[in-house]
Amino acid sequence: MNQTSPNPKQLEAVKNEYASRDYVVRVSIPEFTCVCPRTGQPDFATIDIIYTPNKYIIELKSLKLYMQKYRNLGMFHENVVNKILDDFKAASMPRKLKIIGSFNARGGISTIVEASL
Amino acid sequence: MNQTSPNPKQLEAVKNEYASRDYVVRVSIPEFTCVCPRTGQPDFATIDIIYTPNKYIIELKSLKLYMQKYRNLGMFHENVVNKILDDFKAASMPRKLKIIGSFNARGGISTIVEASL
Amino acid sequence: MNQTSPNPKQLEAVKNEYASRDYVVRVSIPEFTCVCPRTGQPDFATIDIIYTPNKYIIELKSLKLYMQKYRNLGMFHENVVNKILDDFKAASMPRKLKIIGSFNARGGISTIVEASL
Amino acid sequence: MNQTSPNPKQLEAVKNEYASRDYVVRVSIPEFTCVCPRTGQPDFATIDIIYTPNKYIIELKSLKLYMQKYRNLGMFHENVVNKILDDFKAASMPRKLKIIGSFNARGGISTIVEASL
Amino acid sequence: MNQTSPNPKQLEAVKNEYASRDYVVRVSIPEFTCVCPRTGQPDFATIDIIYTPNKYIIELKSLKLYMQKYRNLGMFHENVVNKILDDFKAASMPRKLKIIGSFNARGGISTIVEASL
Amino acid sequence: MNQTSPNPKQLEAVKNEYASRDYVVRVSIPEFTCVCPRTGQPDFATIDIIYTPNKYIIELKSLKLYMQKYRNLGMFHENVVNKILDDFKAASMPRKLKIIGSFNARGGISTIVEASL
Amino acid sequence: MNQTSPNPKQLEAVKNEYASRDYVVRVSIPEFTCVCPRTGQPDFATIDIIYTPNKYIIELKSLKLYMQKYRNLGMFHENVVNKILDDFKAASMPRKLKIIGSFNARGGISTIVEASL
Amino acid sequence: MNQTSPNPKQLEAVKNEYASRDYVVRVSIPEFTCVCPRTGQPDFATIDIIYTPNKYIIELKSLKLYMQKYRNLGMFHENVVNKILDDFKAASMPRKLKIIGSFNARGGISTIVEASL
Amino acid sequence: MNQTSPNPKQLEAVKNEYASRDYVVRVSIPEFTCVCPRTGQPDFATIDIIYTPNKYIIELKSLKLYMQKYRNLGMFHENVVNKILDDFKAASMPRKLKIIGSFNARGGISTIVEASL
Amino acid sequence: MNQTSPNPKQLEAVKNEYASRDYVVRVSIPEFTCVCPRTGQPDFATIDIIYTPNKYIIELKSLKLYMQKYRNLGMFHENVVNKILDDFKAASMPRKLKIIGSFNARGGISTIVEASL
Repeated sequence: MNQTSPNPKQLEAVKNEYASRDYVVRVSIPEFTCVCPRTGQPDFATIDIIYTPNKYIIELKSLKLYMQKYRNLGMFHENVVNKILDDFKAASMPRKLKIIGSFNARGGISTIVEASL
Repeated sequence: MNQTSPNPKQLEAVKNEYASRDYVVRVSIPEFTCVCPRTGQPDFATIDIIYTPNKYIIELKSLKLYMQKYRNLGMFHENVVNKILDDFKAASMPRKLKIIGSFNARGGISTIVEASL
Repeated sequence: MNQTSPNPKQLEAVKNEYASRDYVVRVSIPEFTCVCPRTGQPDFATIDIIYTPNKYIIELKSLKLYMQKYRNLGMFHENVVNKILDDFKAASMPRKLKIIGSFNARGGISTIVEASL
Repeated sequence: MNQTSPNPKQLEAVKNEYASRDYVVRVSIPEFTCVCPRTGQPDFATIDIIYTPNKYIIELKSLKLYMQKYRNLGMFHENVVNKILDDFKAASMPRKLKIIGSFNARGGISTIVEASL
Repeated sequence: MNQTSPNPKQLEAVKNEYASRDYVVRVSIPEFTCVCPRTGQPDFATIDIIYTPNKYIIELKSLKLYMQKYRNLGMFHENVVNKILDDFKAASMPRKLKIIGSFNARGGISTIVEASL
Repeated sequence: MNQTSPNPKQLEAVKNEYASRDYVVRVSIPEFTCVCPRTGQPDFATIDIIYTPNKYIIELKSLKLYMQKYRNLGMFHENVVNKILDDFKAASMPRKLKIIGSFNARGGISTIVEASL
Repeated sequence: MNQTSPNPKQLEAVKNEYASRDYVVRVSIPEFTCVCPRTGQPDFATIDIIYTPNKYIIELKSLKLYMQKYRNLGMFHENVVNKILDDFKAASMPRKLKIIGSFNARGGISTIVEASL
Repeated sequence: MNQTSPNPKQLEAVKNEYASRDYVVRVSIPEFTCVCPRTGQPDFATIDIIYTPNKYIIELKSLKLYMQKYRNLGMFHENVVNKILDDFKAASMPRKLKIIGSFNARGGISTIVEASL
Repeated sequence: MNQTSPNPKQLEAVKNEYASRDYVVRVSIPEFTCVCPRTGQPDFATIDIIYTPNKYIIELKSLKLYMQKYRNLGMFHENVVNKILDDFKAASMPRKLKIIGSFNARGGISTIVEASL
Repeated sequence: MNQTSPNPKQLEAVKNEYASRDYVVRVSIPEFTCVCPRTGQPDFATIDIIYTPNKYIIELKSLKLYMQKYRNLGMFHENVVNKILDDFKAASMPRKLKIIGSFNARGGISTIVEASL
């Protein structure tokens, strides 16, 4: 499943009907999983996306499918979060954007990575 | 039940007896439900209204009945929150107003929409 | 019980021994009850009082007895909080004062009212 | 939406591949809503179904759609739970079955109804 | 308000439509208040009623009004719980009945009284 | 304060008005403190008393004062719980009785002692 | 990753050094994921294994790798739990064995499957 | 035990090895107890000390023994917190200092006192 | 530190003053640590000891020091719990005894081992 | 195990692929343990590291091994946190850095030390 790599074109941008107003959308995805590039072991995380839409909002089903593209991909925590930031920006050009990735503990150490525009 | 559409006239404005003082009212409605316009499936949310009244406060029973008008209405999350903001503003003209809609997860993704005057 | 109406004279002001220093006292009263003026049904709330005393602090037993004066009184949430603010100010003239009333849900809707000097 | 009344034929029974073994399935539906037959106001509940399947298990999507048939139906708490028990029994003839309905507070009183075969 | 004393006639018994089946109803009333007979101070409690109905179930609005009759009544914790047990039994003759009264702390001591038929 | 040693005569037994019925009273005292007999350091615990009264129930204010007698007394955890069991039994002769002492951690080790008649 | 199907030979059985004594091992695997055979969407669950070992205990790293074999496998909830029961039994022949699979909500419905020897 | 009154000389100041850097130490003492000066009844509190050390840090065992000096002392909540502030300042001359005393409920009212330099 | 191996002689048995009565002592040690014999990495656990003493109770300071002997010792989870059971039995010959070791997750898998006499 | 002292060279710095962007990494290590330099008893803490990387991020396995170097080292709480700050700074030269050490209670007193660049 999910053979293609994640990229911004998979995120469907739909018209923001209240574009004249600054408002905030927070999306939480607690079932994110990818693979550790060093050990090949699966990693698990909650990804939170907080944005102020401009002309577009991101449709949720396309967001879910985009996130599943990481399922069998090997990538470091820091890079996952920064790539989602870049892809989400490219797809919807929001006024503000923050991505938070909260990764489950490995070797007794848990990690949260937080990047913003 | 609740055949008419939600509109500001359904919200009863009563005289604010302490209009000379800025104070804050937070109302939480954890039993909000509407319908997804794409799938026809029910959606569930908690709606929070935080406002600084001016000449009027909103009577709670009329607010409850207004919220029930969404029960069988198909509407996107972002539009629900922005419409409540517009209707509440039209009905009571508060000094400050924020609406927060916290929607239950669909497809493993939960969404919070937050709009303010 | 508690036949008289609540008024500031019921609040005993005692000398603040550290009046030269700004410090904060937070008092929480989770067992507040009054009556809904429309339905005659009892209402329940937690009242929080946060103040920076000036020359006086308020003695806690007199505060408890003052709060009990609301037990069989019909009054709207917003008016309860604003009246406590006025009475507490009259009794102790604090440097700063905030009253927060967190009322239990009625008809599935809970309300928090917050007023400050 | 959901114009027809709820009935057992809406529950799809699928073959239990491990019918030779007694095992337990617990299904939790936290987004149940119906209507109070006296006041016409919406009620909200979590419905839990705990059963030991015999020849059939109940398919989850059909169960979700069955539950939505109550959305605009007026029915007392006790009758909701007993009817679900009867319908689920008729549809799947389980070895054991328990239904628990945990209804949100009304007038400051919350109710749990629990019925078993 | 609530001048009359609490008695079983205030509890409305309605026909149990599933009397042929043993099932359990749990009702929780977190806003119970009465008065301490020694000090005259208000007491607060959660009252839980767990019963297996026979021919009758108890209507919830009448139960709420019955509970409000204790509001200004002086009575010891143990007697409150045992009297509710006797009144509820007289009104509905259930197959099984348990009353649990969980009283807020006084003098740093909290008390739970539990009586059953 | 509290110079005398704790003994059963300090516990006031009052008539159980429902002695013909077996029912349970659970009393929780989260502010118990005594002294470690080896180190002289204070110990802190929650004491829970669960009993089925016979002819007498124990009055709560006398129970509070009895518990304060341990404040400056040096005694091992196991002995505290067993002595309260003996004293409570001598004062009220209950049908059943259990004492649970949950002591705060010392040296990273917390202890619960539970004794019954 | 994890191309082979899950089977009992992947579970490494090591000698139980205390086989003369009945004792219980509970293993919790909160990061289980497989795929829904109908929709192709990923499912997430916590798998709990509770067993009384006989001659062998199961080595934890091999258990982790066995669980990862389900990552891209389409299988119903009930079948996942029953297959793990069969495989764990075949690999270690425990005196007692229970498998609990607690699956995340889909369509607002969460499911727990519990099977035992 | 603890016959002497609490005073700053009981607090042992030790050299701060990182005095060139501003950093924060938060100490939490959940087992504080003193006596109510009006009723003679024991009071219980958690005392939190938050400070930025200058040349000295306070040794924890001496702090524990200092706190025990309040055990049988009658003092109002506000005065306890302000005296600890003065004593801690005298003993260690910190760059910043805040004392928070969170006192258990009395008569259903709990109190937090917070004082700072 | 703690160079010697853990053995029963390190556990100090003291006279049980209430040996004529069956009562239960539960001791919780949340700061247990040992070493994984395969990887050399530290393991962390909470050890709970629940016993009915016969002639002796175990002194807590000696128990703490005994537990520290495992700090740099390589031992499997199952063996740790069974050895503590054997040592505690040898030291105090209790009427009943249960040891529960709850080990922190490794590789996303947490383990609880429970052994009893 | 872990014979060498902790020093910055044990922390592996790897290239930050998103160095052009300010973003935040929060690492939480709940299984930190060292030794009290006065009593020789083990101490336990959670260490949190929050930093904005510059050219390097710190590899997590090397961080875990670095933290284990404190296991048998005697050091005061304040010094542990300040040394980790210095070592982490030396190894990765971050744009911002904060270390928080939350130490388990000793003698009923818990301590949090927080130092920043």
